[in-house]
Amino acid sequence: MKNVFLQHKLCSMQKPLILVTNDDGITAPGLRALVKFMKEVGDVFVVAPDSPQSGMGHAITLDNTLYSKKMKVDLMNGAKEEYSCSGTPADCVKLGLQELLDRRPNLCVSGINHGSNSSINVIYSGTMSAAIEAGIEGIPAIGFSLCDYSWEADFDQAKESIIKIVKEALENGIPKGVVLNVNIPKLSKKELKGIKICRQARANWKEKFDKRTNPMGKDYYWLTGEFELLDKGEDTDEWALANGYISVVPTQFDLTAHHAIQHINNWNLHE
Amino acid sequence: MKNVFLQHKLCSMQKPLILVTNDDGITAPGLRALVKFMKEVGDVFVVAPDSPQSGMGHAITLDNTLYSKKMKVDLMNGAKEEYSCSGTPADCVKLGLQELLDRRPNLCVSGINHGSNSSINVIYSGTMSAAIEAGIEGIPAIGFSLCDYSWEADFDQAKESIIKIVKEALENGIPKGVVLNVNIPKLSKKELKGIKICRQARANWKEKFDKRTNPMGKDYYWLTGEFELLDKGEDTDEWALANGYISVVPTQFDLTAHHAIQHINNWNLHE
Repeated sequence: MKNVFLQHKLCSMQKPLILVTNDDGITAPGLRALVKFMKEVGDVFVVAPDSPQSGMGHAITLDNTLYSKKMKVDLMNGAKEEYSCSGTPADCVKLGLQELLDRRPNLCVSGINHGSNSSINVIYSGTMSAAIEAGIEGIPAIGFSLCDYSWEADFDQAKESIIKIVKEALENGIPKGVVLNVNIPKLSKKELKGIKICRQARANWKEKFDKRTNPMGKDYYWLTGEFELLDKGEDTDEWALANGYISVVPTQFDLTAHHAIQHINNWNLHE
Repeated sequence: MKNVFLQHKLCSMQKPLILVTNDDGITAPGLRALVKFMKEVGDVFVVAPDSPQSGMGHAITLDNTLYSKKMKVDLMNGAKEEYSCSGTPADCVKLGLQELLDRRPNLCVSGINHGSNSSINVIYSGTMSAAIEAGIEGIPAIGFSLCDYSWEADFDQAKESIIKIVKEALENGIPKGVVLNVNIPKLSKKELKGIKICRQARANWKEKFDKRTNPMGKDYYWLTGEFELLDKGEDTDEWALANGYISVVPTQFDLTAHHAIQHINNWNLHE
């Protein structure tokens, strides 16, 4: 009995261990803000890319080597331990869990991304791929993004909301197979209306390639595009963000379109 | 009336236009096999990466330039037109649709991948990211993978099944928001038992990092791992493949975990 009691007490005394990562790189202000916020909740361990990895989707490093480096970006306000990694956001989570952390974290948070990862952007997002990777490993995980691409964005406005979401996730757990995609509108704390649980809005990018010629006479392209919202629902992340709310989309990595199985079963494939 | 009649006749006479891409690169035998098979169904247009892009997930090129090059890999049996692209599989599809093709393709096929993209591998797959990118653009799309990593793999065994799936997709259409993830077991044509419509099996990779020291004395890692099947269902892609069937998983890019919305709504986030 005594041992059980002690063990319980030890558990309840132990601060939660929080793995922090991102896709903008270990020195990004968004990550530094998230580290600062998470220090109010638990022990913080950082494994983040050594260079920007935006738009990396769920890439992993298969045919190349990975380097990691123990470092301290912010001596005064930094995490308990910090490592940079030469790989993608998903690599950072894999390496952190298998090699760098000495115990399993209670939570993985990714971000705060400089820019939105709402609606279809979740597919391209390195921020969310890190959270999804942790989710695949069975660790509760949340990606945070601020709808402001600026390096000087104000992350403090969302501090209270972020801490609230993180504490609720630690207390209630996140359903198995699910990670949270949290997007925060670019508003002052006073203007923020609250938090809405949403579905991913249907949207895509209308691409436009900017074609140029390099100094050697060879044509090349820049990928640009315009966001196209195809969804008028008021239960979507885009609606929430446009109306002053933080959006929380429960996001899964079982990509099966269960509703389509019957349709395809009617094809003439089985003779 | 005459014009309408002519237009209809032209449409039914016109061969379907099929965009072929992959993640193993434009010279990969799996892509050459797919081009050969698709020439029996329609006009083939290739836009594929100029170098291997395995494990790229849904990465896109945001902070870098893209080059494309008109080429002819196989003068005798090649596609109508072929372009290599310096970007990721998703970039290839975007560039193909916006810049290189002069009309909208009727179908996009990606592969044939050298290696499985079943169960959780769909998340890391460049092959599937190309198909998903086409799906986002509203184009029916299918990713094909053979469970054989060898460069000398025998793709011909699956020729009939691949053509059957493609013809059915062209005839019946694929539901909006859905693309197909087709995996083919490494079996002879005689051993293949048929085609099964499945859900994605729950699985993950038990990572192991192989730590080494480079000639300059610096530590580095190789990512390795063992596949861990967590699912005993007989309606999964893994079950189908293990039992001699080609697996077809309808795959979606709305990642919302609809079943979890109520759970998160019960959290204390709204005061």
